[in-house]
Amino acid sequence: MATASSQPVYRATTTAPVNIAVIKYWGKRDTTLNLPTNSSLSVTLSQRSLRTLTTASASAKYPAEDTLNLNGKPQDIQSSKRTLACLSNLRALRKSLEDADASLPKLSTLPLRIVSENNFPTAAGLASSAAGFAALVRAIANLYQLPQSPRELSRIARQGSGSACRSLMGGYVAWRTGEQADGSDSLAEEVAPASHWPEMRALILVVSAEKKDVPSTEGMQTTVATSDLFATRAQTVVPERMDAIEVAIRDRDFPKFAEITMRDSNTFHATCLDSWPPIFYMNDVSRAAVRLVHDINRAVGRTVAAYTFDAGPNAVIYYEEKDSELVAGTVKAILGASASGWEGPFYEVLANVTVPGVSLDNIDSRVLDVLKGGVSRVILTGVGEGPVTVEDHLVTETGEIVTK
Amino acid sequence: MATASSQPVYRATTTAPVNIAVIKYWGKRDTTLNLPTNSSLSVTLSQRSLRTLTTASASAKYPAEDTLNLNGKPQDIQSSKRTLACLSNLRALRKSLEDADASLPKLSTLPLRIVSENNFPTAAGLASSAAGFAALVRAIANLYQLPQSPRELSRIARQGSGSACRSLMGGYVAWRTGEQADGSDSLAEEVAPASHWPEMRALILVVSAEKKDVPSTEGMQTTVATSDLFATRAQTVVPERMDAIEVAIRDRDFPKFAEITMRDSNTFHATCLDSWPPIFYMNDVSRAAVRLVHDINRAVGRTVAAYTFDAGPNAVIYYEEKDSELVAGTVKAILGASASGWEGPFYEVLANVTVPGVSLDNIDSRVLDVLKGGVSRVILTGVGEGPVTVEDHLVTETGEIVTK
Repeated sequence: MATASSQPVYRATTTAPVNIAVIKYWGKRDTTLNLPTNSSLSVTLSQRSLRTLTTASASAKYPAEDTLNLNGKPQDIQSSKRTLACLSNLRALRKSLEDADASLPKLSTLPLRIVSENNFPTAAGLASSAAGFAALVRAIANLYQLPQSPRELSRIARQGSGSACRSLMGGYVAWRTGEQADGSDSLAEEVAPASHWPEMRALILVVSAEKKDVPSTEGMQTTVATSDLFATRAQTVVPERMDAIEVAIRDRDFPKFAEITMRDSNTFHATCLDSWPPIFYMNDVSRAAVRLVHDINRAVGRTVAAYTFDAGPNAVIYYEEKDSELVAGTVKAILGASASGWEGPFYEVLANVTVPGVSLDNIDSRVLDVLKGGVSRVILTGVGEGPVTVEDHLVTETGEIVTK
Repeated sequence: MATASSQPVYRATTTAPVNIAVIKYWGKRDTTLNLPTNSSLSVTLSQRSLRTLTTASASAKYPAEDTLNLNGKPQDIQSSKRTLACLSNLRALRKSLEDADASLPKLSTLPLRIVSENNFPTAAGLASSAAGFAALVRAIANLYQLPQSPRELSRIARQGSGSACRSLMGGYVAWRTGEQADGSDSLAEEVAPASHWPEMRALILVVSAEKKDVPSTEGMQTTVATSDLFATRAQTVVPERMDAIEVAIRDRDFPKFAEITMRDSNTFHATCLDSWPPIFYMNDVSRAAVRLVHDINRAVGRTVAAYTFDAGPNAVIYYEEKDSELVAGTVKAILGASASGWEGPFYEVLANVTVPGVSLDNIDSRVLDVLKGGVSRVILTGVGEGPVTVEDHLVTETGEIVTK
């Protein structure tokens, strides 16, 4: 039997970011491969605020079955077809390398131990699966020293969770729907790096987290199957918006970016409402956030803020840093001490703001009450980079899970 | 100068009903003539519960200008183009009669005094304009002894308020969009009389009446101009639903009627949400009513209830009388003493109901809380007849307004 020293533990660790779509992914044309009915586009959020940290390790000393530990809890990956699909795709790529170069250690034959941690609470209602699968794919790709580009790896991450493919890159990321039945051209690509338009900020209003009514995967398939309006969005509306928002990003045209973002969020939720039975993700607090943004824009006289809502009630409000007082400053004045989270790396510009950037006389008084009662927490962040390789391993040199 | 006796007061009085659409009217292709972008279909509600009572009178002794008194208050009809259009159309028809028969009194030359009363509070958020304009047109048509059918008169009522054209008839009424630019074929017609399917009941949940955010006329034009999904509904979805719901009515197929009704309400509100800026008429209480209906149908195992929402948060729940306990009985058990209005001609079947027809264990507990907190009043009614000529005049024989 081999000694411990002959059973090395191979490790690689990465972070991966959350992304928030401005053109929404909603609907699969292939549920196994996670092929979408329409292209989508997102902003990658800074990992200084929100990130998943994942270590992938491989060793002959591990039990034969791959394992995944998430936030301190073992996960049942054997029953997760999506995770298994990612692992087998990555192993196959490693195997090709090993077949071509006999000097490489046969990592593809070793069991994997994957350990992952989010630095944000699941209860915040943020789509953690995107960052999670992006980190998993990126960490294993690093472990296996795969030469594939993030764009090529996005084909694999997509199979874990559709939107995960967009978390493999920073800045402004498009996921092209593609045309091939095997999904080989359904890939994410960076439209512009974060450095192209670094002033983009995002303020997340965390609305008291009731259990989500309909899980996304189930919800989107209900919409595809039943909404009479869905095909119009997927086939006509989104392609035009994709073109237009890429131009807006190229030109750093915030008002145009903002209008497309808000309209696409509304159209997405409209197709949910048009589903059978209808799906509601936005609630009265979400609607108050919509009103707030329109009221702020009207009061300022230009479009300084844009809302978007994923499959849940949380509002994400995009704005440019120069308008921090007008947007985030106004929200801060409204929420006062009723919401936590006013802190972190993007807070400095607001630390000394005590009066709203926009007089609250401009905001509907019901909106003020509903927001104050319904937003428990905020997350202040901005556009950021893609996954980063780090040495902060969650598995020790000898293969033990790091307990924090 | 003529004596009083030579200046007779001509009078005619009618009632007119409220109608609630199951295929919604939303969008005008001609705003002056109130020509719709799509056909619609409604259920006329019983005047034993809700009705407008209107007396039209004409006399040479009246001041020269036509007047309208509504719920005890003089209205400024000279600045209401819609009212003036109705009056001038009706006068022209009377004039034709007078021109053809010289023995007829020249009522078309006399000032009109119109007095109208609703038996339901405006605050209930019910579309009173439909019943109001239907009663106005019917009363004057009676006063003028016009030979035109309700279908022909609907052309005139439509110009007062689009949905008013459907309140000129009882039972199940379609408003055909028509194709002519002058609106001559945009008319309402009875699809089936109330007696064809008299078991239809409607329970209106009156949701605390905040001021309506966007008036219907403004809202529908915003949708037409800005929603990318609107054309699909108007051109494709509604024509199919019109055909299908007419079949459902013909066959008294409640489950089919119910599904089309609910889906069209959802599609209508989806196009509102897809408008720019977005329009929200449903709130969290409305959503709770949607859930309630789906939960009741699921618990019963067949479709016994259907919701629909106009341009406001009130829910109208349709059901058949035989299912009163299952539907209205369950709502009554949920609301308990927190909502008034459990009374009137349709209440008898429920008077002794003390337990919910569907166990409340089948209803989401949040839904129960939201409904109990948000529904202040109910109106229990059913399908009913069209306008009825009555002798309960609101103007005396000598032309005075009756003070009640």
